[in-house]
Amino acid sequence: MIIRDATHQDWPEIYPFYSAVMAEGRTYPFPEGQTLEEARPWWMEQAPGTTVVAVGDGAIVGSAKMGPNRPGRGSHVATASFLVDPGHQGRGIGRALGRHVLDWCRAEGFHGIQFNAVVESNHRAVHLWRSLGFDVIGTVPEAFEHPDEGLVGLHIMYQRLK
Amino acid sequence: MIIRDATHQDWPEIYPFYSAVMAEGRTYPFPEGQTLEEARPWWMEQAPGTTVVAVGDGAIVGSAKMGPNRPGRGSHVATASFLVDPGHQGRGIGRALGRHVLDWCRAEGFHGIQFNAVVESNHRAVHLWRSLGFDVIGTVPEAFEHPDEGLVGLHIMYQRLK
Repeated sequence: MIIRDATHQDWPEIYPFYSAVMAEGRTYPFPEGQTLEEARPWWMEQAPGTTVVAVGDGAIVGSAKMGPNRPGRGSHVATASFLVDPGHQGRGIGRALGRHVLDWCRAEGFHGIQFNAVVESNHRAVHLWRSLGFDVIGTVPEAFEHPDEGLVGLHIMYQRLK
Repeated sequence: MIIRDATHQDWPEIYPFYSAVMAEGRTYPFPEGQTLEEARPWWMEQAPGTTVVAVGDGAIVGSAKMGPNRPGRGSHVATASFLVDPGHQGRGIGRALGRHVLDWCRAEGFHGIQFNAVVESNHRAVHLWRSLGFDVIGTVPEAFEHPDEGLVGLHIMYQRLK
């Protein structure tokens, strides 16, 4: 598996699993039911951010987007989001994308990286980010409407990078 | 002083103090140096959000914007931002706008309201929001570059509404 910068042409291959993950409704407070064109700006980042894809066996199996979490006087802290094709989970793709994002953030000179909304019942993600050095620095109670579990919290996770 | 919905025509009267507050660089991780038209979408909210103005002695002396903090499965938690004309501070305008926003959020049925980035050295704001019922639920360390104090934290503040 390799991780490379996403191109405009990759989006139609990302979109099916983007849509599948959003339709599941378990991991992201994103809009559901977006068309290919509606969803594009929600995932395909503009500079100074960027979007990458994980490619294995010739197919895109995951993607991450990253960039400054805020403009101006907050732009030294990064943020990122991650998608793994549900048909390819459990193979370390999320972890590889996570490591790639941390390397990118360090190379770009960010002081830290913040995740704004990690669903607290998404134990796989919370465990992964903790194992890569993130801490939960706060939890917004009942901020996510989970299809099975009802209202669950959204963690803010953070890692200092320098 | 009255608080009313902002109209498109109000923006040129809000923009001067919006620009002044951003140029001071002490309270918001927003872009600086925006033109009238660049800044407009950063403050003038679209439905389901809204922007209001505080009017006293025939002049706009403050403004607030409010709406869902996240789309989709996070849209039951609100957020808001506030501006008071620096020439009119200390007169209770921020407090009146805060109460107005809380009333609006309750009327719209939001479950809670979250501030994503309150500069921790902005003691006046932190005190005001605490006095209106908000708690600090986490602080992103060194996430704001203050012009005098260097890197200071950004508080996430929250209040349950039902």
